[in-house]
Amino acid sequence: MSHEKFLDELISTLGADVAQRGADVPERYHTDWSGTPPQRPLALVRPRSTQEVSAALRLCTAHQVAVVPQGGLTGLAGAAVPSQGAIALSLERMNTIENTDTRAGLMQVQAGVTLQAVQEAAVAAGMVFGVDLGARGSCQIGGNVSTNAGGNGVLQHGMMREQVLGLEVVLADGTVLPMLRPMIKNNTGYDLKQFFIGAEGTLGVVTRVLLRLRPAPQATATTLVAMPDFDAALAVLARMQSHFGNGVAAYELMWDSFVQASLSWLQLGAPFAERHPLLALINMDGKNESQLQGDVQQVLEEAMEAGEVVDAIVAQSVAQAQALWKLREAPAELNNNMHPAINFDVSLPQADIGRFAQACEAAFSARWPQKHALYFGHVGDGNLHVSVDGKTVGGTPEAIEAVEAELYRLVGEFQGSVSAEHGIGLHKKPYLQASRTQEELAAMRAIKQALDPLGLMNPGKVFD
Amino acid sequence: MSHEKFLDELISTLGADVAQRGADVPERYHTDWSGTPPQRPLALVRPRSTQEVSAALRLCTAHQVAVVPQGGLTGLAGAAVPSQGAIALSLERMNTIENTDTRAGLMQVQAGVTLQAVQEAAVAAGMVFGVDLGARGSCQIGGNVSTNAGGNGVLQHGMMREQVLGLEVVLADGTVLPMLRPMIKNNTGYDLKQFFIGAEGTLGVVTRVLLRLRPAPQATATTLVAMPDFDAALAVLARMQSHFGNGVAAYELMWDSFVQASLSWLQLGAPFAERHPLLALINMDGKNESQLQGDVQQVLEEAMEAGEVVDAIVAQSVAQAQALWKLREAPAELNNNMHPAINFDVSLPQADIGRFAQACEAAFSARWPQKHALYFGHVGDGNLHVSVDGKTVGGTPEAIEAVEAELYRLVGEFQGSVSAEHGIGLHKKPYLQASRTQEELAAMRAIKQALDPLGLMNPGKVFD
Repeated sequence: MSHEKFLDELISTLGADVAQRGADVPERYHTDWSGTPPQRPLALVRPRSTQEVSAALRLCTAHQVAVVPQGGLTGLAGAAVPSQGAIALSLERMNTIENTDTRAGLMQVQAGVTLQAVQEAAVAAGMVFGVDLGARGSCQIGGNVSTNAGGNGVLQHGMMREQVLGLEVVLADGTVLPMLRPMIKNNTGYDLKQFFIGAEGTLGVVTRVLLRLRPAPQATATTLVAMPDFDAALAVLARMQSHFGNGVAAYELMWDSFVQASLSWLQLGAPFAERHPLLALINMDGKNESQLQGDVQQVLEEAMEAGEVVDAIVAQSVAQAQALWKLREAPAELNNNMHPAINFDVSLPQADIGRFAQACEAAFSARWPQKHALYFGHVGDGNLHVSVDGKTVGGTPEAIEAVEAELYRLVGEFQGSVSAEHGIGLHKKPYLQASRTQEELAAMRAIKQALDPLGLMNPGKVFD
Repeated sequence: MSHEKFLDELISTLGADVAQRGADVPERYHTDWSGTPPQRPLALVRPRSTQEVSAALRLCTAHQVAVVPQGGLTGLAGAAVPSQGAIALSLERMNTIENTDTRAGLMQVQAGVTLQAVQEAAVAAGMVFGVDLGARGSCQIGGNVSTNAGGNGVLQHGMMREQVLGLEVVLADGTVLPMLRPMIKNNTGYDLKQFFIGAEGTLGVVTRVLLRLRPAPQATATTLVAMPDFDAALAVLARMQSHFGNGVAAYELMWDSFVQASLSWLQLGAPFAERHPLLALINMDGKNESQLQGDVQQVLEEAMEAGEVVDAIVAQSVAQAQALWKLREAPAELNNNMHPAINFDVSLPQADIGRFAQACEAAFSARWPQKHALYFGHVGDGNLHVSVDGKTVGGTPEAIEAVEAELYRLVGEFQGSVSAEHGIGLHKKPYLQASRTQEELAAMRAIKQALDPLGLMNPGKVFD
């Protein structure tokens, strides 16, 4: 059997420590956090170097075996779940922080370093790294690159794409592209590294990343504000940005349904005496703790006079700031409280998010009067999350599909995107064409064909 | 003759107002600011709409006629100079600002709008646009996208790539890719628009651009500082960024040779009583004029105590700030004072720029003891410009080539880039491989083949 010959060659080339047959592969490599049914890979390869990645891919090309790159396996779209007959290629052993240059604000790492390790190394060097998200302890930088990760820092520092100054990538045929020159400006032909950021492993394997670090803030402030409607929320964001500029580090909007779920699931005390249509958690960076606190107070007073803010709490300590941020942690409890949670991660023109949420509520309520839906998100970036409790809409696969179809129909109507930060993977493939024209999809396929002519890199992910 | 048939069809399809035969094409469309010998195009097409661009390209594909896209024709690398037998496609009539959304900070424009028109419209709307460069009155947004333009604002706002939220592009076969959805986060397959930014018209024609606008600063300050060496210059930049964060809007470093040339060519008075190895022009943004001035004074005093700064002038008025910035305007006089000026636009790891300039001086002096070379640049971005007076190295084409070869050899040694912000075009093709491996060039060619299989888009530019 040709797979046997391939596996023999793989193990003899890389060694039994690096390459394992499928039967020996632990279950944790069979799926990711997306809830996709597990699939045993043909083999698991855990290389320790770019050379070993290249050797593995050369063999896969010679035997026409598909490759599914794996990072921390925390993806929510299923891009890292093994495909039938494919090997899983885990970057977990390539976890060295190779170089930190605080003067230039750069850090070069292997792709298997966790996001948290990068964050901690940046702080130890007196700087910060611009991307942060809930899975920080498990997710890996290579996966953050491959999904163009978003999270809590996008408003201030941009997506993962804007933190990447260089990449080393191995193509399906084993070719190594060393795009690691540490330059901010480098207009020498196509900026090839851009092609691999957000490609979800379908064009090549990211093996090294040259990251930009950001200066550490000297002071931070946190406030929780209550607002009457979405237009007020946008006005407050604009007011904050006008006053603090790029110092507005996070602006997380929570509709009342979400706040009530958080209070109940996490057993928190209500922050305000009254319920309000919308709350926002806002972080600001500044130079001086007391001046920043004073400025925040003043801007909030102006916003209250303008009727944009109806109530507000300014954290007086780190502990109080952390307590306020607890309100935002309901997402970690979704799967314990919704059966199942039908989760969405959509992008919209920022100004339309309020109307979109209303349109979803109206459409859902018309069809499923008992539905329980939460709305929250990184509104500063135009990113809305919606979670619907499956059992309140009937709980069947058909009902779940109907909820998805309804929401994605509205996304198309609002000229939005079906994936803001989680990617397409397996789960959102049916809805990709709601955000991309046939012409765009044809151009993507042409690029795929150019860089992976045998179609071996993460097949069946993003598009067929 | 088949060209006659093509021209007849082109004119009958688009009208004689939009399409002109080569014999009728004014000389200004025959070359650009790069000094490349003029070439008469087969025809000039000046479409008024994306549909007309698409119709022209469909005909070009049907007749296998090449297309050279043209913007403001201010490029310094020759990318917009007509190729033999190609039509020139000028975007100059597509110069409408279609939509400005200050709440979302977005502006949608046609590709032929000048940079200055965009800047002025942004200011009129109470915001600013992040890219600025000397050719602002003539260069067009489509050209800024296609060259991934740099300039004076990169330190604060990034390159053109970071100002682009969406693009509409027409491929060689006339296919329109409408990648204009106004979202910051949109992880739905490959981020196709990235492929066309900096591609110098070799993959398609940019017809519309969705731009990000930035909040206008409330106060600005300008200072000219004198420093003993390059390490001091980096320390001052770090100190400024640590204090003012992203408020450091420009940091332009000038070596003494450049300063002396500016003083002489522009007949300016010396800013300081003594000459100093390095001067930097620094702009800072802030919220309050008097507070900002005070902060700048304080940071400069700290830098002087630390020995990083030996003298400094803080502008007390807009007029004085403009007078200080005059010192940076020698580049406009290069062609009047050097015969010819051999100009370089290289990128280097920021920390190595000082050593690189020393290495150039040493290498040039060893071979051409009479050489006159100026060093200056956007050091905050790792971008150094060097101009060598051709007549001081012999003035022959061989001598010019030898100077280029010597400098680009050093760029390779320092792991730099042969083009920071001007692009490759025609002029830097021979040196592209100093900044890119054969594997990278092969991947670029594969992408080119995928999106332009007949090789009709701007042939012979960037690579052959």
